[in-house]
Amino acid sequence: MIEPSRSLEQRTADVLARLREDVDLWVASADAEGNAYLVPLSFVWDGAALTISTPRASRTARNLMRAEWARVALGLTRDVVIVEGTVETLAIGTDPGLEDAHAAATGFDPRAGAEEYVYLRITPREIQAWREANELSGRQLMRAGRWLVDGRPRS
Amino acid sequence: MIEPSRSLEQRTADVLARLREDVDLWVASADAEGNAYLVPLSFVWDGAALTISTPRASRTARNLMRAEWARVALGLTRDVVIVEGTVETLAIGTDPGLEDAHAAATGFDPRAGAEEYVYLRITPREIQAWREANELSGRQLMRAGRWLVDGRPRS
Repeated sequence: MIEPSRSLEQRTADVLARLREDVDLWVASADAEGNAYLVPLSFVWDGAALTISTPRASRTARNLMRAEWARVALGLTRDVVIVEGTVETLAIGTDPGLEDAHAAATGFDPRAGAEEYVYLRITPREIQAWREANELSGRQLMRAGRWLVDGRPRS
Repeated sequence: MIEPSRSLEQRTADVLARLREDVDLWVASADAEGNAYLVPLSFVWDGAALTISTPRASRTARNLMRAEWARVALGLTRDVVIVEGTVETLAIGTDPGLEDAHAAATGFDPRAGAEEYVYLRITPREIQAWREANELSGRQLMRAGRWLVDGRPRS
């Protein structure tokens, strides 16, 4: 059975819960020649941005550092959250508080490894969320960095 | 608790079950300028290839028709199946049997709509599957179009 379409307020609350509670997301990226890439990575949400970490030499890091823009997906294919936003690159040691939060949220501390990792902080500009086709209308929750619900929801 | 790492045979069987039984996957694509895109789409597995369908004018269709290569993900972020393969574009009416199978598997018949859809048939060349970090080793199940288990598994 298809559930009724959720309100903007409910979708926004659901998305914020996912941002706070989920551990993993799918990251799409591409190189300058237009070769697409896709991997799952763990993230932490700090109330304003999603931070992932991956080896500086990896395809995902190189692609995102080049594009300075990311499109990521949280949730399931029938409970979709799509986030697009700017990418800020942070070398290890830049923001110890964020690095501690990332390690606590993901269970993985890239500061401990032999390989050089980089943190990539994605600040959402566009957020969409839908479950089934009946929710495609009204799927936009954030546009140009602004939540569409009245007032900025508590993150 | 982390489960023990699965054997190549078990992973291959699990992946084939997902290909037969799952309905949705994540499709990454990119345009010629290196702008990445990511959407969930429904698919059907015919034993040799995954077929999706999306409007011919959509970003995903345009990107995949250009690249003639796709990277898609099935499953969850902690039960990952990554498939990369060639993309063949089939206009509506090209393969009625496949179109019927797609409609039956996905519950959606693009032949019925007003907008022009296209079928994109992705033939796997590389398949990887893993659950947790302990399965990253041995994640390759297909290389250059050949399953790595002895003999070609029944699809």
